[in-house]
Amino acid sequence: METISTAKSHGGVQGVYRHQSAVTGTPMTFAVFVPPQAANGPVPVLWYLSGLTCSHANVMEKGEYRAAASAHGVIIVTPDTSPRGEGVPDEKDNWQFGSGAGFYLDATQEPYAANYRMYSYIVEELTALIAAEFPADMSRQGIFGHSMGGHGALTMALKHPDRFASCSAFAPITEPSSADWSRPALEKYLGVDQAAWRAYDAVALIADGRRFPDFLVDQGTADPFLNTGLRPQLLADACQKAGIPLTLNLREGYDHSYFFISTFMADHIAWHASRLAR
Amino acid sequence: METISTAKSHGGVQGVYRHQSAVTGTPMTFAVFVPPQAANGPVPVLWYLSGLTCSHANVMEKGEYRAAASAHGVIIVTPDTSPRGEGVPDEKDNWQFGSGAGFYLDATQEPYAANYRMYSYIVEELTALIAAEFPADMSRQGIFGHSMGGHGALTMALKHPDRFASCSAFAPITEPSSADWSRPALEKYLGVDQAAWRAYDAVALIADGRRFPDFLVDQGTADPFLNTGLRPQLLADACQKAGIPLTLNLREGYDHSYFFISTFMADHIAWHASRLAR
Repeated sequence: METISTAKSHGGVQGVYRHQSAVTGTPMTFAVFVPPQAANGPVPVLWYLSGLTCSHANVMEKGEYRAAASAHGVIIVTPDTSPRGEGVPDEKDNWQFGSGAGFYLDATQEPYAANYRMYSYIVEELTALIAAEFPADMSRQGIFGHSMGGHGALTMALKHPDRFASCSAFAPITEPSSADWSRPALEKYLGVDQAAWRAYDAVALIADGRRFPDFLVDQGTADPFLNTGLRPQLLADACQKAGIPLTLNLREGYDHSYFFISTFMADHIAWHASRLAR
Repeated sequence: METISTAKSHGGVQGVYRHQSAVTGTPMTFAVFVPPQAANGPVPVLWYLSGLTCSHANVMEKGEYRAAASAHGVIIVTPDTSPRGEGVPDEKDNWQFGSGAGFYLDATQEPYAANYRMYSYIVEELTALIAAEFPADMSRQGIFGHSMGGHGALTMALKHPDRFASCSAFAPITEPSSADWSRPALEKYLGVDQAAWRAYDAVALIADGRRFPDFLVDQGTADPFLNTGLRPQLLADACQKAGIPLTLNLREGYDHSYFFISTFMADHIAWHASRLAR
């Protein structure tokens, strides 16, 4: 692991790191914020998964998470959203597929299967790296994210309730199998057999019996993707049917941007911290 | 004035606007955050001046000012740092002069005098525009900034103590007349006669008799420009000699970046709010 940069911020250290990933076959860049409490021993880890087009950097710059992470004493890990580089197959003019659009799955279709494996990259390889390199208490992990990253957080939590004690999302893609901006990507990554898509779809996972203690979702009512790509009601219906408590906050007038995310960031970190406390 | 974008954030509205400036002879872009309290009547205005290479956007994205601005009910105005555009003389490869480096002065030398007039642009033209277009109580204004913008804030406050009730700075250039990264710019903008530079130099202005009620300055001790371009001790000495109370916080381990600025942003906004309260 190579350190790209570190800077003191809100009493902790915001770092950017790079390593050669065996899972994606590419160098991968990620950011980690370590709060001051880590000087006294390992602290909980909160994973933040970003949305389409983003890298590790967008939420690091615009997410306003460090004040709350320092107040509550949690590490924040912000991975990239896809493999990148010259050897990685991509569609340059398509922001909903390829670079910046890994959809937190393991592709099975050629030519994507070799690189687009963000699911295993995060839950296996990067998890092991964080455990090895940072003052992280891996017995206390939470996960959240935005949009495509909200989808990533919900699906990873549903598949690993043993590992993640808390999960929340900002404007998540609740059912990517049926949303216009994600269906084409799922087909290219996973093939035409939609049975394979269910492992990467929060609503389908719940229908198939996966459970989680509770979810927090914030969603802006002025979000241009609200009724097309996101559709929080689908998650609300699935949770209600499954008996999963869901706190769904519809935020009047907020859009899909970091201006929205940053507004409710401290609330989400407090939600996680309360569930990650010993 | 044209509205480029608006987004709800932290209960208020973050907008980006553009207008044709008669002072700089160019279109100028700026950002304004209006807190929710403005719905009940005009609120104080806090000007934030940015540093070298920045536009209005950097602090808007990375400054983390909206939570505190909403908590205290102040408008935040973030202007650009220079005129820009095809007809504006510039030195493309020089980040310490020209575009992004207006130094908050009115140039008197050709070919810069026609466009590089950020001093008059801010204290006259943009001030009038803010008064006309936003729910601003112009009888309650404060000013702060970072690095070159800290210089701008200190000098504008010293020259207009009638207008600004509060002034603070993050890592300000305290004496641009003698700092390596600003001397060449002052010479090109203002000419070789250094008497003209004193109107744009906080330490010189204080030596020449200008006064202000008090200043707040935060400075990181790991700032790479600390002992060359910035030199807070020069300001501390000038303030002590003049009897101006200065709160100078040396922040252990912090650098010159927005990771530093954002850490102490809420403190600064609280400082201003207490002085702008009725």
